[in-house]
Amino acid sequence: MKAFAKPVETLIRRLTRLPGIGEKSATRLTLHMLRASREEMEALAGAILDVKQRIRACSQCFNFAEDELCPICKDPARRTGLLCVVEDPGDLMAIEGSQGFQGLFHVLHGVLSPLDGVGPEELRMAELVERIRKGGFQEVVVATNPSVEGEATSLYIAQVLRPFGVRVTRIAYGLPVGGDLQYADRLTLGKALENRREV
Amino acid sequence: MKAFAKPVETLIRRLTRLPGIGEKSATRLTLHMLRASREEMEALAGAILDVKQRIRACSQCFNFAEDELCPICKDPARRTGLLCVVEDPGDLMAIEGSQGFQGLFHVLHGVLSPLDGVGPEELRMAELVERIRKGGFQEVVVATNPSVEGEATSLYIAQVLRPFGVRVTRIAYGLPVGGDLQYADRLTLGKALENRREV
Repeated sequence: MKAFAKPVETLIRRLTRLPGIGEKSATRLTLHMLRASREEMEALAGAILDVKQRIRACSQCFNFAEDELCPICKDPARRTGLLCVVEDPGDLMAIEGSQGFQGLFHVLHGVLSPLDGVGPEELRMAELVERIRKGGFQEVVVATNPSVEGEATSLYIAQVLRPFGVRVTRIAYGLPVGGDLQYADRLTLGKALENRREV
Repeated sequence: MKAFAKPVETLIRRLTRLPGIGEKSATRLTLHMLRASREEMEALAGAILDVKQRIRACSQCFNFAEDELCPICKDPARRTGLLCVVEDPGDLMAIEGSQGFQGLFHVLHGVLSPLDGVGPEELRMAELVERIRKGGFQEVVVATNPSVEGEATSLYIAQVLRPFGVRVTRIAYGLPVGGDLQYADRLTLGKALENRREV
């Protein structure tokens, strides 16, 4: 026999299925939810249902959108000649957070990973090629993760976009800001030296 | 202008209001929820609404209950002469998890904390005295947290229950299992020496 009533156990079990939430966190969250006001929790449940019902992929860049186009594609202030290719909407958000990019995005929804059976057909690659083919972009910044798959994907993109004469660039490797030379791994340090710049 | 559609931003904001969930975790959870199946997320939202609608306090021990009594109070296998007093249902669950206690519980829903304006009237203290007054309990184990407030609450309980001739005990202080003498704080180490036992 369990210590808690069934709806409580059910909620704990449901929460543990979320990423990064173990049984202790799920229990703590559940206890909080039991103490929180009913309005507050109805709003949370409503927000969860809302994203499932109202969110779809932007028809242009495949970021999350409420309408046909996402907020970024709809924004007239963005630089339309510059395109940043990312793996998923989380990466897009991180780049937006850096405030270092004013162009448009293209979300692949994954990276090439032959071992996992992910080829170009599983990603929004054809749509990327089509956007570039239509013209108007001077540069494509590939911002896939600095992993083997991310690297392979950037090389693949450079290759398929070559016929269109667009400039394909890759985000820089180097030391993280505030990092420590002594703790940097050899590959990163090698890249940081290789990519050194005039002061 | 935000990077994400409004329902996505709303969900992220709602999730950051939960304890221990910052903006990064909330974003990661939201991205997971967007990818998860609609059935899965409807079940989660339903489980949240369910606890708010169906859960109330057990009329006897004030643990969470779906019916008049909680699963523990309803269990005929529990030792009815032994009562464990805890601060909140999370502590009750931790004790149940230890499988070291077979008696009944009483949930205070807080601890005495004069500075925060929490007196005996704000807790389920009168109900505790009433349960003991009715008789049938040989021992009350006070399992409030090993904090100043928890300690004060245990002393208060010992005092108000004295007239009823019931034995009031306190859970033991000492070194945590698997801990390290060198890293134990002085107070804990002092208590561990003071509470030493025959081998």
